[in-house]
Amino acid sequence: MDAYEQYMQLALNEAVKAAEEGEIPVGAIVVCKGKIIARAHNETEKLNDVTAHAEMLATTMASAYLGGKYLNECTLYVTLEPCVMCAGALAWAQLGELVIGASDPHRGYSRLSPAVLHPRTKITTGVLAEKCGELVRQFFQSKR
Amino acid sequence: MDAYEQYMQLALNEAVKAAEEGEIPVGAIVVCKGKIIARAHNETEKLNDVTAHAEMLATTMASAYLGGKYLNECTLYVTLEPCVMCAGALAWAQLGELVIGASDPHRGYSRLSPAVLHPRTKITTGVLAEKCGELVRQFFQSKR
Repeated sequence: MDAYEQYMQLALNEAVKAAEEGEIPVGAIVVCKGKIIARAHNETEKLNDVTAHAEMLATTMASAYLGGKYLNECTLYVTLEPCVMCAGALAWAQLGELVIGASDPHRGYSRLSPAVLHPRTKITTGVLAEKCGELVRQFFQSKR
Repeated sequence: MDAYEQYMQLALNEAVKAAEEGEIPVGAIVVCKGKIIARAHNETEKLNDVTAHAEMLATTMASAYLGGKYLNECTLYVTLEPCVMCAGALAWAQLGELVIGASDPHRGYSRLSPAVLHPRTKITTGVLAEKCGELVRQFFQSKR
């Protein structure tokens, strides 16, 4: 495993926690200068709040840790392609780098609003994509 | 003043509070069955958090009040056209009606992602637009 995959595995661990709690299994971590400064998973059901996506919670946590709202020196790893809301938040945060696991052709930002991210945000996709996507597929199959 | 304008004036009162606190002056309220269930203004500076836009805070508050994450029976009044992040949140919430004060040609959702809102959300724009926009213009002029 390379470093991207190691960090994505930690985001996947967060996604597994979400699944165990009956949430759509998406996890995210934020890394800044080699240090993990935020770990979060989707909590929309528990909090009864559509804004409680993993990326939103991780962004709020990372900003609280840094004491500033810009994440331009941070990398956010997320197991599923962010939705438009989350991508919009990452744009406001001027995120340095975004690393995505599985793509989300239905709800991912790249379909509805491909230009939403900050122009300086470096984007890498497909890291542990199969494992990240399989977790979501299994979750929805179990709900049927 | 008609009912739209009366409610927008309450959102404007929230925006004025934001300006007094040194925040970009945007305010929002949520009305459900004739009752105001959330009032919020931009708090990104105070909270050091890019996600703390008026609409996001109002959405979270309204969901907490209702005990459910869907706002399909609610109207959200906001003094400035929502950004993509906020519009994405309102889409997830399946907002019933969105009433906008001033448009935001630079950062508003309708430029970057016009299809982001939920297809059932009724949209009304331009309510007290001049007053809502003037507050933002004054704020940025005072910062120069």
